[in-house]
Parts: sequence; structure tokens; C-alpha cells
Amino acid sequence: VAAGVVALAGGVGAGKFLRGLVAVVPPEDLTVVVNTGDDLELHGLRICPDLDSVTYWLADLADRDRGWGRRDERFVALDELRALDPEAAWFALGDRDLATHLLRTGLLDGGATLSEATARIVHGLGVAPTILPMSDDRVETRLDVVADGLELDLHFQEYWVRRGARDEVKAVRFLGADAARPAPGVLEAVERADVVVVCPSNPVVSIGPILAVPGLRPAVASRPVVGISPIVGGRPLAGMADRLMPVVGLEVSAVGAAHAYDGMLDAWVVDGADAGLADRARRELGVAVAVTDTVMTDDEVAAALARTALDLVT
Amino acid sequence: VAAGVVALAGGVGAGKFLRGLVAVVPPEDLTVVVNTGDDLELHGLRICPDLDSVTYWLADLADRDRGWGRRDERFVALDELRALDPEAAWFALGDRDLATHLLRTGLLDGGATLSEATARIVHGLGVAPTILPMSDDRVETRLDVVADGLELDLHFQEYWVRRGARDEVKAVRFLGADAARPAPGVLEAVERADVVVVCPSNPVVSIGPILAVPGLRPAVASRPVVGISPIVGGRPLAGMADRLMPVVGLEVSAVGAAHAYDGMLDAWVVDGADAGLADRARRELGVAVAVTDTVMTDDEVAAALARTALDLVT
Repeated sequence: VAAGVVALAGGVGAGKFLRGLVAVVPPEDLTVVVNTGDDLELHGLRICPDLDSVTYWLADLADRDRGWGRRDERFVALDELRALDPEAAWFALGDRDLATHLLRTGLLDGGATLSEATARIVHGLGVAPTILPMSDDRVETRLDVVADGLELDLHFQEYWVRRGARDEVKAVRFLGADAARPAPGVLEAVERADVVVVCPSNPVVSIGPILAVPGLRPAVASRPVVGISPIVGGRPLAGMADRLMPVVGLEVSAVGAAHAYDGMLDAWVVDGADAGLADRARRELGVAVAVTDTVMTDDEVAAALARTALDLVT
Repeated sequence: VAAGVVALAGGVGAGKFLRGLVAVVPPEDLTVVVNTGDDLELHGLRICPDLDSVTYWLADLADRDRGWGRRDERFVALDELRALDPEAAWFALGDRDLATHLLRTGLLDGGATLSEATARIVHGLGVAPTILPMSDDRVETRLDVVADGLELDLHFQEYWVRRGARDEVKAVRFLGADAARPAPGVLEAVERADVVVVCPSNPVVSIGPILAVPGLRPAVASRPVVGISPIVGGRPLAGMADRLMPVVGLEVSAVGAAHAYDGMLDAWVVDGADAGLADRARRELGVAVAVTDTVMTDDEVAAALARTALDLVT
């Protein structure tokens, strides 16, 4: 039976880390299970921000400075859309990125599953590791917010991109998660994995939806699991984990983030900036803790981080 | 009661002619009723080639050399799509053009009718005349062809763009036309029009679908009608009317094209190249015939042509 490494991944932080992981794990041994809770239907297109981010990073097509989207991107279509209707252009779609959405939506309209469409895109971009959506069923991350005095139920992207994360969040829900089935191959990959790596992604809205798919969390917990803290020096390296972690009762720290994975972790990696928290982490979490550089300014740092993480549990 | 001019329009030929028509008719007096039989769903997007062509020409955004699409267009998304999957990239979608499809599809998904979506696009591009789809209901131009020895039922765009019009056509059908209703405002505009102009478009697959919408043909026939021949010197100025006219029993000539409008026409305009056919046209068609320059190399030629056409029936 083949074994290997399964990575649970969200967007940017995961993408940077995976650049390092593929440097130390043969691609045929790596399966990346990606959050689809942020997916949206927009302008008729099915957009999967985390799947695409992971794919672009692994294809070495990601824009490292911007963090999201493709390098050498153009925004001609978006600029035209904004000229036609400024309200319609709230979600940034690059011209190169659009090709991914066009291909995927056409495949889905033709009856393909999201897994199948993803495999075509991954193959088309020459990416060797296996990339799987957490589920082929729709799971939608929704936030109950107070916006301008009104209680609203927003899609994650409406909260995050359209409204600039300015609203107070009361609750996070994964609509459809209860009925979702893991995508084909996900449980199988986890069950035979030598190690599961939780990428340095937002524990609430990136890794949270993956673990909310029935069967995923216990399967992961049954394997050796190492996670990398997405919180460095009390702040997220990217995104807005600091806004959402308190909503679900997590302290915004390199220790607090690990509590999202209570009962599942065997090891945890924190940044040098959080060396002072290492003893507390060991005590509170009861797992092996490594302190290393987690600020992935290039692929070499990411590879060293991946090696450190794997060494903790293998 | 307001009056004015109604133009029945397909794609390129109509677009060029309309540039002239707006030079001689106040925009508030002009309503363009456009073929939607060529519309397609592709990559999840609703694409309306003739509506967009007419809109781009009237907005002075059309590419005169290419004939279709927008001037100063880019094809970054299409090139990426081709790289991902060559088979998927058969229909040319420019980056600027994509914005139109994104906006329209989003509006339709949100419950708007095609008329409403079209009005938003027309307004967004600053076009003053009214542009109406022939119907908000789907009418699909389909061709029965013999392709590599097989009898196939193809969408017009599959025949024309995807397969390069290489198949023998046996029949032309307007799927859904029997149940289609004219879009809001179409019948009203025709019924109060001082003149209906049939643009120099393909009589079979551009004007044919419009007249196949129940109620349209009798309404048009009740008004003064002038048409411009899309056939010059025995050949279409653009497109492939010569392939399809024989299928429906029309001679490929400046006289044959007019027979598509038997019982409806009051006047017909042919090119100087067909001056020798003018007497036959008058005799056979029993309508006023003018001979003038119909090869619209610029807006001035188009304006003179429009003036000649209107003068014949007003």
C-alpha cells in the first residue's frame, strides 16, 4: 500500500508552505486536501480561491508579492467590468485566472465533479502532486455579522472581500457540511498517510471547513499529525485569523491556534518570535513543539520548515 | 404617439450599417431589434454575439478590421484557456469582451431578463439608441448537417466557429421559436415605427430567427419596410450567407436575398455592383429599388446608405 504525506490546506500560507513541502516529499507521495468553503458562484462562474491558490503555488505561477492569484497577471476584463458596473467588480478576477474559472465551470456544467475538474486544471498546469477538494459537495462558509447595526448572514467572500472584513462577526457556520461527503480519494489518502500536515492556514475558515466534513477529523486524528502555527508574534502572517479566532473561542497566539486541533495533533511548529511560548505550548497541548523560522520569504525557508515539521513526527 | 425607426439586425453587417443609421436618425427615435438565435452558453457564461456586436458598433468600440469583437482587444484569458485545454478554447473570447459576458451572466443569474441585462450593458457602454433582444425566451438556431458522413444536429456556433462551416447543411431550424414571445417593447416599437429597416445581415440565420418569433413578421409587414441586400456581386460581404441561402431555396444574389422578405418589403437597396439586377429586382419583387454603394468602408458610406434607404420609404 502506498503511503505518504497528506497536507490540509487553505490559501496563501498553505501555498507558500507547499512550495517547501514538494522540495522534501516526492510529488507522487503528496496529496493536498484543500478547503472549498470559500468557493463562490460569481458572474456564472465557479470560483475556488483556495484550490486555485494551492494549484498556482505548486505550479510556480503564483504571485508571491500579492499573495493571491497569478504572477504576471492582467486585469483587462475586470477593468472593463468595473467600467460597465462598478458594483459588479468587487471580486478581483485576473485575465489569466479567468481561464481557470472558465475551464472549471465548463467542465462542471458538462457533468464533471469538482474533483474531476480540479484534476484537469492541475494536469493542465503541469502540477505533479495530487490536489483534492475536501468535498465534491457544496460547503459554504457563512458568517453571522453585525453590519451597520444590522444582523446579516454573509458568504465568507462577501465579508472578507466585498465588505473588507469591517463587520463584527458573531458566528461562523459551514453550510452544507453536515451532508457533505469527503471527495473521492480524500479519506483513503488520509487513512494511509504516514503523516498529515496542517498547513499554516487560518484554523477557523481555511482548515475548519475541511475538518467539518464528516469523517475527516477522526481520520486525521488517527494518523501522526503535525501543524504549523499561522500566528506569529500574536498576529496572522496573512489574512484575518485574528478577527475570527476569538469568535470561536481561540486565543490569537501560536498556542491558541493549536487548540483548533485539540485531540488531533502530535506536533506543533511555532516561529522563533514565539520561542517564549514553546514551553507553554508543550505543557498545554501535550505534543512535541519545534521552534523555527516560519516566515516563508522564499522556497528555501519553506523547505527547511517542511523538513522540521516532518522530522517531528517521522 | 412616438414614432421612429426600427432596425432588424444581426452581427457585423448590421453593426456597420447602424453606425450610419445613427448619423441620420436621432438616437431616441431608433430601436434595434437583434437576433439572439446565435446565443450560446459556454464555460457557464451567456454569450450573445449579435447583441454584443451591435452594441460595440454603436458604442464605437467595435474592431472594424476584424469585424467582430472589441477594438484594442486582448486575449490573455483565451490564450491561458488554450494552454490549459486546447479543445475548450474554440470560441474566441477577448478579455474586454469577457466583461460583457460576466456582467450579463451575473444579472441573468440574479433573475434579470435578457432585455434587462442588455439595457444595463447598453447603458454601461454609453449607447443611446434602444437595443432589444428579439425575445427574452431562448431561441436556438440549429443546423442539420452531414459531417464526415454523419448526420448531426449542431448549434449554429458549432457549425460556424467550431467546425469552420465545413459541413454540408441540410436544414436550418429555430429551436424554441414557436413558443418564444417578442421581448418587451419589440412589438410596440415595430407597430409605431415610421419605417422598419432590415439591415444587410444574413437573411437565413440573422434576420430569419427574428422573423420566426411569433407576431414579429406580420407586425413588420404592416409597416413601411426597406431592406439592404447583404449580397454584393453574388457573394456575401461578410459571413456565409452563400452557404445557407440555397438550403432554404434562396438564390445567392441581391435579388434572391430579398425573397427572404417576400410579402414584407416595400423597398430594397442593392449595391452598384448589382445595378444590372435592378430591373429584375423591381419586376420580380414589385418594390422600389435603389442602387448605391453598400460596401461600408467607413461611417460616411454607411450614413449615405442609410439616407438612401430611408428616402425610399419616407
